Amino acid sequence: MHVFRDIEELRDWRRSAALAGRTVALVPTMGYLHEGHLSLCRIAATHADCVVASIFVNPTQFGPGEDLDSYPRDEGSDLVKLAENGVHCAFLPTADMMYPTGYETFVEVQGLTAPLCGASRPGHFRGVTTVVCKLFHLVEPQVAVFGLKDYQQFLVIRKMAGDLLMDIRVVGGPIVRAPDGLALSSRNAYLSHRGRKAATVLYRGLAAAREAYRGGERDPGALRAVALEPILAEPLARVDYVEVLDAETLAEPSAERPMVVAMAVFVEKPRLIDNMVLGAALAE
Amino acid sequence: MHVFRDIEELRDWRRSAALAGRTVALVPTMGYLHEGHLSLCRIAATHADCVVASIFVNPTQFGPGEDLDSYPRDEGSDLVKLAENGVHCAFLPTADMMYPTGYETFVEVQGLTAPLCGASRPGHFRGVTTVVCKLFHLVEPQVAVFGLKDYQQFLVIRKMAGDLLMDIRVVGGPIVRAPDGLALSSRNAYLSHRGRKAATVLYRGLAAAREAYRGGERDPGALRAVALEPILAEPLARVDYVEVLDAETLAEPSAERPMVVAMAVFVEKPRLIDNMVLGAALAE
Repeated sequence: MHVFRDIEELRDWRRSAALAGRTVALVPTMGYLHEGHLSLCRIAATHADCVVASIFVNPTQFGPGEDLDSYPRDEGSDLVKLAENGVHCAFLPTADMMYPTGYETFVEVQGLTAPLCGASRPGHFRGVTTVVCKLFHLVEPQVAVFGLKDYQQFLVIRKMAGDLLMDIRVVGGPIVRAPDGLALSSRNAYLSHRGRKAATVLYRGLAAAREAYRGGERDPGALRAVALEPILAEPLARVDYVEVLDAETLAEPSAERPMVVAMAVFVEKPRLIDNMVLGAALAE
Repeated sequence: MHVFRDIEELRDWRRSAALAGRTVALVPTMGYLHEGHLSLCRIAATHADCVVASIFVNPTQFGPGEDLDSYPRDEGSDLVKLAENGVHCAFLPTADMMYPTGYETFVEVQGLTAPLCGASRPGHFRGVTTVVCKLFHLVEPQVAVFGLKDYQQFLVIRKMAGDLLMDIRVVGGPIVRAPDGLALSSRNAYLSHRGRKAATVLYRGLAAAREAYRGGERDPGALRAVALEPILAEPLARVDYVEVLDAETLAEPSAERPMVVAMAVFVEKPRLIDNMVLGAALAE
């Protein structure tokens, strides 16, 4: 596996790959890799000749008071995991490389970024789309794979790529869960033993909403109430949002179309997110 | 010369060029081509194996009440001119192709877009950077050539490409002028015989400022006054702005660094722009 820390090294490699007619799939990550990330790398390998995984904790997607400085990092372990999961190139740029001095250019998706995490974290998605656009320019992938745990992010990136006429297919990778249902997340590392147990309320809420949906419930308000119930019963959990929206547009849902139940919940220190799509092939 | 009206045709051609190792230079235009555009095509040919010229009157860079609907068009004549000036592919997309239904993604450069045309035409540069970003994604050029008559646009595009880590060199082509000094512009077609004569005041103002600069004048206010004088004396001319700014940053100028004298002047109906860089190799 190549380990590139420099933009020009990456570009040289990419140019050779292009001349050789090799296709590339990209998996952008912020590191501290878990099985969720690694599953994306394996999915990426099914779509292209070469897989590039980036590790970059992107400062512009963190708001003031968020966990940029404490975000967990373990580069050595990450590189071993990537090498063992079919990645051909790891790309580890610095913030100075990704954000040249005096940068003042931003990529913004409107509409889709208004609700959910866009409402809770102003500027977050502008940071995400801007850095992903840069990674796309550097890596020039044919395919990019994003985890569906960050469901809104997946929709936003796919929209950006389509709107900006990028010749890149944006693929979503299924959420990977612990045996008790907790979605894997680097931020789970912040949880105490007690908090880790409490954090299962997100999945329990989603699973309850799914049961209600399977039972015929289509009223978004009722589905939301079902999802909220176990979370409100957990003293360590504090709801940021629990919403039921159209799974494609994130607008008001309708009974005839797939819906997504999306939630962000503080459990002790970390803010955890999770979601479930109801009524579509994506639904778990 | 290929004439592509469809994105997929262009992409197929581009993929073959990439596999063959051929480099591409792009000249984005809004058509109604004159010698200024054609000089850019010839410059482009010195930088790459193939030249792509696009013709697209981009709706998002026109404001309400501006001349989108009346913007001059002459596609047949344009295609002949491109073919005669070394262009390999002409790309003529429709607005529906460049702006997919429900698009909501924009690319924005801050800072550099604040003064001059950015102040006079709110949203103009956002439209420009968004469409040029899309053209860059479609054509994937190694080099892109923009006319220096649109001096601020050149700086903004170059900044966008750098900030977004595009592997594209943005080259400026010198202003092409009529024998009496008027900068060539598709919008000159709007001028009456009388207005055409009056329009020379822009160049006369710039030339006067250049003379003053050569004579040792470095005070931006004094240079501005010199440039304004012939314009204010012309009854058919109405000043939108005349500014003297730092030629690289468009911030407040300083005597030790190159300056740009930039102006936008209404002459009869059209709003004409022109500029001159003082104290740098770019200066005419």
